[in-house]
Amino acid sequence: MIKNTEMVDFKVFHDKWGHLIPVEENATIPFDIKRVYYIFGVEDGIRRGFHSHRELNQALVCVHGEVKILVKTPEEEENILLDNPARALLIGPMVWREMYDFSKDAVLLVLASEHYDEADYIRDYAVYEKEAKTWFKNVVSR
Amino acid sequence: MIKNTEMVDFKVFHDKWGHLIPVEENATIPFDIKRVYYIFGVEDGIRRGFHSHRELNQALVCVHGEVKILVKTPEEEENILLDNPARALLIGPMVWREMYDFSKDAVLLVLASEHYDEADYIRDYAVYEKEAKTWFKNVVSR
Repeated sequence: MIKNTEMVDFKVFHDKWGHLIPVEENATIPFDIKRVYYIFGVEDGIRRGFHSHRELNQALVCVHGEVKILVKTPEEEENILLDNPARALLIGPMVWREMYDFSKDAVLLVLASEHYDEADYIRDYAVYEKEAKTWFKNVVSR
Repeated sequence: MIKNTEMVDFKVFHDKWGHLIPVEENATIPFDIKRVYYIFGVEDGIRRGFHSHRELNQALVCVHGEVKILVKTPEEEENILLDNPARALLIGPMVWREMYDFSKDAVLLVLASEHYDEADYIRDYAVYEKEAKTWFKNVVSR
């Protein structure tokens, strides 16, 4: 995996009543859950995201259908298929991300460590690249 | 709505890139999000839940497909269809709940105010009924 990203397998409670997957803040995932959002109804050919966060930590899990995620730093990149409700992609600070190839029935659930804060977003790749190069030089990665 | 339950409409951000629904703790919903869980792959004819919580607050939203929820106190009950990812059912303390009629493709997302604590569950209806009668007599409902 590229820096500041990680795959996490969630435990599935599966019995005759169905499947249940619990995610506890600071336990199943290593940060607070202050905000949750879900993305759905994304049409064929749409690519979205195109930003990095300065400090936010997020867990992305496709709870229905599938979607691909590009994660990228100035030095490396990786494309990840999310098609399993028990497998989450953790994305830490200063990672550029794009989401694409949403299946028609995809629901992408995101658990975020902070409330929404526009100042934490970097939406211009050139700005991101410059800031990220300095960041990765100076900060010990997680 | 019966006591300690409420429907909440979430704001949908809908544009050419799809739909996004954010839920912020202590803002969109009136409590912390410490735990998230999702239920899926529930077969025809299965009914689940059959418990109350003593203190937990939860928001239930069906992010794909549909499901029905029975909420019940010793004095009243209501059956609620969840079939809209923008419409959540809030359930407060001391409400019995059962979930049924899951569609094959249903994903029920639950946002919970506390970490998992078995001591907060009441799983025997007779015990629930007795405790709830006292509770609703003594506590000012939300």
